[in-house]
Amino acid sequence: MFLIEMFLYLGVFAAGVSGALIGIKKELDLFGVLFLGGATALGGGLVRDVMLGNLPPVGFLDPVYFLVSTGAGLLTWLFYHRINRLQKFILVSDAIGLGVFTAVGASSAIRHGFDEPFIVISMGLITGIGGGVLRDVFVKEIPFVFRKEVYAIASIVGAAGYYFTAPLMPRPAAMYLCLAVTFAIRIASIVFKIDFPVYKENKPSKP
Amino acid sequence: MFLIEMFLYLGVFAAGVSGALIGIKKELDLFGVLFLGGATALGGGLVRDVMLGNLPPVGFLDPVYFLVSTGAGLLTWLFYHRINRLQKFILVSDAIGLGVFTAVGASSAIRHGFDEPFIVISMGLITGIGGGVLRDVFVKEIPFVFRKEVYAIASIVGAAGYYFTAPLMPRPAAMYLCLAVTFAIRIASIVFKIDFPVYKENKPSKP
Amino acid sequence: MFLIEMFLYLGVFAAGVSGALIGIKKELDLFGVLFLGGATALGGGLVRDVMLGNLPPVGFLDPVYFLVSTGAGLLTWLFYHRINRLQKFILVSDAIGLGVFTAVGASSAIRHGFDEPFIVISMGLITGIGGGVLRDVFVKEIPFVFRKEVYAIASIVGAAGYYFTAPLMPRPAAMYLCLAVTFAIRIASIVFKIDFPVYKENKPSKP
Repeated sequence: MFLIEMFLYLGVFAAGVSGALIGIKKELDLFGVLFLGGATALGGGLVRDVMLGNLPPVGFLDPVYFLVSTGAGLLTWLFYHRINRLQKFILVSDAIGLGVFTAVGASSAIRHGFDEPFIVISMGLITGIGGGVLRDVFVKEIPFVFRKEVYAIASIVGAAGYYFTAPLMPRPAAMYLCLAVTFAIRIASIVFKIDFPVYKENKPSKP
Repeated sequence: MFLIEMFLYLGVFAAGVSGALIGIKKELDLFGVLFLGGATALGGGLVRDVMLGNLPPVGFLDPVYFLVSTGAGLLTWLFYHRINRLQKFILVSDAIGLGVFTAVGASSAIRHGFDEPFIVISMGLITGIGGGVLRDVFVKEIPFVFRKEVYAIASIVGAAGYYFTAPLMPRPAAMYLCLAVTFAIRIASIVFKIDFPVYKENKPSKP
Repeated sequence: MFLIEMFLYLGVFAAGVSGALIGIKKELDLFGVLFLGGATALGGGLVRDVMLGNLPPVGFLDPVYFLVSTGAGLLTWLFYHRINRLQKFILVSDAIGLGVFTAVGASSAIRHGFDEPFIVISMGLITGIGGGVLRDVFVKEIPFVFRKEVYAIASIVGAAGYYFTAPLMPRPAAMYLCLAVTFAIRIASIVFKIDFPVYKENKPSKP
């Protein structure tokens, strides 16, 4: 499980950077910036652990994730302009994070004895997107994941992949597969600029 | 309990429609629209189950409510203009939902061994209004229930009615009574256009 | 523990007033005003109890805090203009509340058997600032505590003080110390107008 843990730390780091960047843009103070980075990195896992009744959540019992996200936030504060320019690196790291968070969440449901498809996929999805939803609510934005691009769907497909392959192979193999599927869908949607459909009202006033 | 379950599904359906309609108006994508419908339909019960320590919440263990709300969301997406015109039907279904969610929430507190009035009424209220509060927070609105009309009060009075009558009659009878009281207050407030008071500042600049 | 309980009630009262004042300014109805006061007063403790798995949260089992916050909200509704002018009294009471909530939260973690520094300080901080964060999210503001002044830091330092002194002295003494430290930092930051740093972008367009 060494490699997947490295991906997990990378995902936590990327989420901490993403939250801190938005915090700086929204003119939060240093506490707000680091808190927003932490909420983005740990929020999904917190909500999942609450839902599973796994309390206190892992994020409070093992501070290493908090330390990684706070380190990411501090680096973002110190090197804002340089980091803000690394958009491609951030997008790729965030897609890895989405994949690994989904895999950890889905496998966490099974580890706690809940192996029905709905709850496995839900826990994957909540772990994958929960932090970003919290981040956006805290800075008064309609969550990004509800509005555009293919983000949640990548997590749902990846979690479903985990659910169906977990009985067929060793647990870590199913997690890598989930990560790969989620990552591939997310990156493909960015490369090919695929958006999930938005309802078009027939506005007769439009020329 | 057959009839009250039918009302429960109707309430979940109406909440799914209400969330999806708002999601479409806020230009969410299809995932966002369905998620918002689900949050509106299941959110109150989720928060209640977290508060009662009843984890994982019912909504994750039994996917039927999720399926009903997703079905409601999909129908709303497909027939948006037609459904958007059914305002009276939506208002009445939503009032039934408020009543049945309140009854289910209040009885859930007692079923889990908490029979003090404050917690029984709180759990009725949280189940009744929680989904709508979540929906409004997700789309960046101050929750409707905090701002106007008689909505939360109907739920509080209904839940209090449940608390006082539950020891006197069979459980389902008290639930029907709670549903009827909540529904009647909510509908009466719409028909007679009764708002709960809003503080009027003495603005001397107003002519 | 008599004196610290009096401080606790004062803190709940001040939080109820602060929530109700904002609710009136945001033109909520009477239910919304009282609900916002209650969320501000009880929200931090609710979130902490969820995180600790201490369910149902104390705030639902013992309605006295709810009664105090609702009383505070009603008084604010009845005497809005007079109370709105008591800014200094509100600031001082709020600072006492921040201190006592932090002390109660940090000691609650230890009482439930979690004595690692990260979780003790987190539970102090969540109890201290959680209600205000909820209040601001409900009325569509970026939480105050993320944006300016020294507020969260006072709570973090106070909770750290509790963590390090709790093994050395009777529990109540450590709680008073936490309260005093948090209060002193918060008040000093107001008196000397100290803000936590906000990132300054080098905007070349500024003359």
